[in-house]
Amino acid sequence: MLILGVDPGYATIGCGIVDYKSARFKVVDYRPVLTSAGTPFPERLRIIYEEMDFIIKKYRPESIAIEKVFFNTNSKTAIDVSQARGVIILAAAQNGLSVNEYTPLQVKQSVVGYGQADKNQVMEMTRIILNLSDIPKPDDVADALALAICHAHNSGSGLDPANLKIRRGI
Amino acid sequence: MLILGVDPGYATIGCGIVDYKSARFKVVDYRPVLTSAGTPFPERLRIIYEEMDFIIKKYRPESIAIEKVFFNTNSKTAIDVSQARGVIILAAAQNGLSVNEYTPLQVKQSVVGYGQADKNQVMEMTRIILNLSDIPKPDDVADALALAICHAHNSGSGLDPANLKIRRGI
Repeated sequence: MLILGVDPGYATIGCGIVDYKSARFKVVDYRPVLTSAGTPFPERLRIIYEEMDFIIKKYRPESIAIEKVFFNTNSKTAIDVSQARGVIILAAAQNGLSVNEYTPLQVKQSVVGYGQADKNQVMEMTRIILNLSDIPKPDDVADALALAICHAHNSGSGLDPANLKIRRGI
Repeated sequence: MLILGVDPGYATIGCGIVDYKSARFKVVDYRPVLTSAGTPFPERLRIIYEEMDFIIKKYRPESIAIEKVFFNTNSKTAIDVSQARGVIILAAAQNGLSVNEYTPLQVKQSVVGYGQADKNQVMEMTRIILNLSDIPKPDDVADALALAICHAHNSGSGLDPANLKIRRGI
């Protein structure tokens, strides 16, 4: 099961593609999608959409796992992140991916095992689960990989249906 | 100057296309784009994008005038409106439109002449300015037409450059 994890934003969007099969993880690719502050916002949305569409068409994941956004003290930021998130979900929907949303709490519980885990614990557990030598940078990318792990853990056994059939003797 | 006014949303998006030339308005078309509550949100974003892209490609407006969104008591609604607004702006940017944002205060000041105008006054003045027999329904569509008027009033004289040349004796 190929999963695209996405940490949404409009300046830095974390992307991580993970293959989850037979309860094992394999990291396929990870990188940030970047837009610069001097670029007009509509153009930034266009860049984000095209980059996401490119990544999805390149790897053909089955599903996207994207972080839920919440209102914080900076309403302007939350509106702009939501607008960018809309075009990311659009690219996923147009390419037939299932769209799955997780809260930071769900990610912590799924990756570390408890909701009070701090950011560093989540990133270190992500590194260990994915068998990486270093925590991917920037943080947005590590967050995206954690989201992919969270979705894998919430999507059943990760066992290949073909193997399941053999084991069940079908 | 062909202007697409848009009142953003995710269930009902008001759209109005207005031609503003020689300081005169002509209504080209207006209608709502609708998505139903039972449709998954990613699919609603896809519908909104495709409908907006269709309208833009059909009429080829030069610019879009879209209402700014603000945080209100219902954060879930504001996030979802922002996500839909992102895909509307994306469709405009991909088609080369200039993207112009106006606050409700700016619309009131521009259409009625003062910022304390109520919703009914804005809609009635929109009807008069556009020489319509009735206020368009639903309200989202009337709001979209008011946004188009606001942009026309904020984009210079509306006089045809060709006519200007003649008047100036160039």
